[in-house]
Amino acid sequence: MGPEDLAPLFPIELIMQEVTTERYVDIPEPVLEVYRQYRSSPLIRARAWEKKLGTPAHIYVKYEGVSPAGSHKVNTAVPQVYYNSLHGIRRLTTETGAGQWGTALAYASALFGVECEVWQVGASFDTKPQRRTLIEVFGGTVHRSPSQLTESGKAFPADHPGSLGIAISEAVEVAAQADDTKYALGSVLNHVLLHQTVIGEEALLQLAKAGEGAPDVVIGCAGGGSNFAGLSFPFLRENLVNGAGTRIVAVEPASCPTITRGEYRYDFGDTAGMTPLMKMYTLGHDFVPSPIHAGGLRYHGMAPLVSHAVHEGLIDAVALEQLECFEVGVEFARTQGIVPAPESAHALAQARREALEAKEAGDERVIVVGLSGHGLLELGAYESYLAGHLTDDALSEDALAASLAGVPAV
Amino acid sequence: MGPEDLAPLFPIELIMQEVTTERYVDIPEPVLEVYRQYRSSPLIRARAWEKKLGTPAHIYVKYEGVSPAGSHKVNTAVPQVYYNSLHGIRRLTTETGAGQWGTALAYASALFGVECEVWQVGASFDTKPQRRTLIEVFGGTVHRSPSQLTESGKAFPADHPGSLGIAISEAVEVAAQADDTKYALGSVLNHVLLHQTVIGEEALLQLAKAGEGAPDVVIGCAGGGSNFAGLSFPFLRENLVNGAGTRIVAVEPASCPTITRGEYRYDFGDTAGMTPLMKMYTLGHDFVPSPIHAGGLRYHGMAPLVSHAVHEGLIDAVALEQLECFEVGVEFARTQGIVPAPESAHALAQARREALEAKEAGDERVIVVGLSGHGLLELGAYESYLAGHLTDDALSEDALAASLAGVPAV
Repeated sequence: MGPEDLAPLFPIELIMQEVTTERYVDIPEPVLEVYRQYRSSPLIRARAWEKKLGTPAHIYVKYEGVSPAGSHKVNTAVPQVYYNSLHGIRRLTTETGAGQWGTALAYASALFGVECEVWQVGASFDTKPQRRTLIEVFGGTVHRSPSQLTESGKAFPADHPGSLGIAISEAVEVAAQADDTKYALGSVLNHVLLHQTVIGEEALLQLAKAGEGAPDVVIGCAGGGSNFAGLSFPFLRENLVNGAGTRIVAVEPASCPTITRGEYRYDFGDTAGMTPLMKMYTLGHDFVPSPIHAGGLRYHGMAPLVSHAVHEGLIDAVALEQLECFEVGVEFARTQGIVPAPESAHALAQARREALEAKEAGDERVIVVGLSGHGLLELGAYESYLAGHLTDDALSEDALAASLAGVPAV
Repeated sequence: MGPEDLAPLFPIELIMQEVTTERYVDIPEPVLEVYRQYRSSPLIRARAWEKKLGTPAHIYVKYEGVSPAGSHKVNTAVPQVYYNSLHGIRRLTTETGAGQWGTALAYASALFGVECEVWQVGASFDTKPQRRTLIEVFGGTVHRSPSQLTESGKAFPADHPGSLGIAISEAVEVAAQADDTKYALGSVLNHVLLHQTVIGEEALLQLAKAGEGAPDVVIGCAGGGSNFAGLSFPFLRENLVNGAGTRIVAVEPASCPTITRGEYRYDFGDTAGMTPLMKMYTLGHDFVPSPIHAGGLRYHGMAPLVSHAVHEGLIDAVALEQLECFEVGVEFARTQGIVPAPESAHALAQARREALEAKEAGDERVIVVGLSGHGLLELGAYESYLAGHLTDDALSEDALAASLAGVPAV
């Protein structure tokens, strides 16, 4: 695929970013203006949590929850809407699951006078009315997916719980039918990862200001891969260019272990098989993960750039069970006062493992962990956890094998 | 009343702060340690909003929503729990309406290893399960008030919607029965206002860093008065000591216009008449405000220190209708990306009035406005507003007259 094949989908600036081989790409001034409203995001030394754990480790938390939508997603929503607005695009469509991406795109769209239509996975639409309201406060329109507005949606009964795959199909279909409408993607692609590197670049500067050298380990949760790459790729550059020697760890849920249990091969990015094939770690495009609460981590594939770095041995990965993650989420809230999104709690859980290892070894390990968003709109999941209603979800080996068998031969 | 009369209720350090005549009181190191986790809170130049309004005014927003509980309440919860913990207090009780105070006290209690029991007004308990869950995530216990745990609560049927007055009575009753249990108050008293002045002291330093002189106007919403005083009293000091000439404006809801329509006289702080009499602006202690969504502003009285400053002509006050406030809340979200708590939206609405006056007059008015908390757990109110279900609530003149007639003669 060359840049010209992407032209119907994305504005030329995003396409050039998708294929650029430059190490640095300038952030345009109108995007910087918005970033300045909430960035730099804080790098918090989690002293109360360190004390609770009794660890000599220094735990630095890079907190993206201060952004308008409460997560890192705004970092890419803003440039994406900006570039589209330069070309007179009147409307953007997208899908959303947990809702972070839809919220971010709605806010960015409001800033640049673009309409935003979000197809939200039916099950989330039904159980998370607050998320829908937040998108509407930002001026976006939310449709329950499957909707009766598209051919893709009409193929399902109106009360179907939906899926990310169906929602993508609906949003793409609407965008494809109108010249003044484009589709926007919240993760996976190179340009999205590029936008998110503002996180890691800031963290490097903030660590230096705090008097720390290269950290021993950088930890992020990985769903599509943009949060993880955004934090870790600048540290990866320091490893490759300056020999920094930082371990970099991606954390995924045990119920959707794309990197740790998937295969590195060409597969579709969506369930329906409408996207181009991408070389990546995949569980198979029709893999259906257990309904854990970390919706942002329930993706069968992984960003090709992250997959490549894993395959080259530059990045480690671990898969964690959700009960450990919620336990850490509550512990973190009671010490640091921030309720982490369930996705982010996965990264914190791995940080705790590192901090306890450091305690055992008596070393002042420097840990940088990405806290990609707050969980204030996910309190229902915490309520279930506190009430003892959550369980760990074992991966079905049969389902994984069947799904991998469906990956196309290339 | 002297300090000795307060001893059964509060630890000696808080009592000494209550009656101090010192201009500055040191913040103890363990409290500073917690403050450093989330302070200084940002002072945001609201450039996107200014642009939307087309105003030459400089609007600076002091944003307390970054705190652990999402509002300014943490600033006083932390020192209150700390001082109690010094005296071996095992448990703190309190009431909460909108829920910000109960959340803040639960978080602070977790930090210092103290138990926290919150009596939440029944109507809020029933309609805002997220707030309850957040208190539980922080380790607090929440009781629906009226509860069957106290004599005060048993006087009402179990399905009664409750009131702040009843909830106070329950929390006080439990605290009074046990030596190891105290009661904590989230506003009104001098020591609470003192703790909140960290907001205004920071804002003064941040404004200077931004190259601004004394602002033309400082605006805060006023319920019990601690958020308002916390932001404005340091600016008031600059007026009195250094002749700064800043106008200071308190904003209250038209449905509960304590300063603008109340009388300055002795009255009870609670509905049941259990507290000492306080000299303050009051609508009468049995005044029942319309059920507007800004629960934190629905208080019949006003902090004695704020009342005194109003009476001395040092502070102005305005009362605003809620529809204007929600309209501004949505506008602010779509520009600055922060959904304000309905209480804070009152302050923003007055800031918009000032900014539009400045546009009319063509002057670069410098406006400082307090954004006391985010509204992410109040999205139900925004949903009602967007759906057109909210109305302005006219004040009942008859009810006000009847209530004022019930204020005790002193």
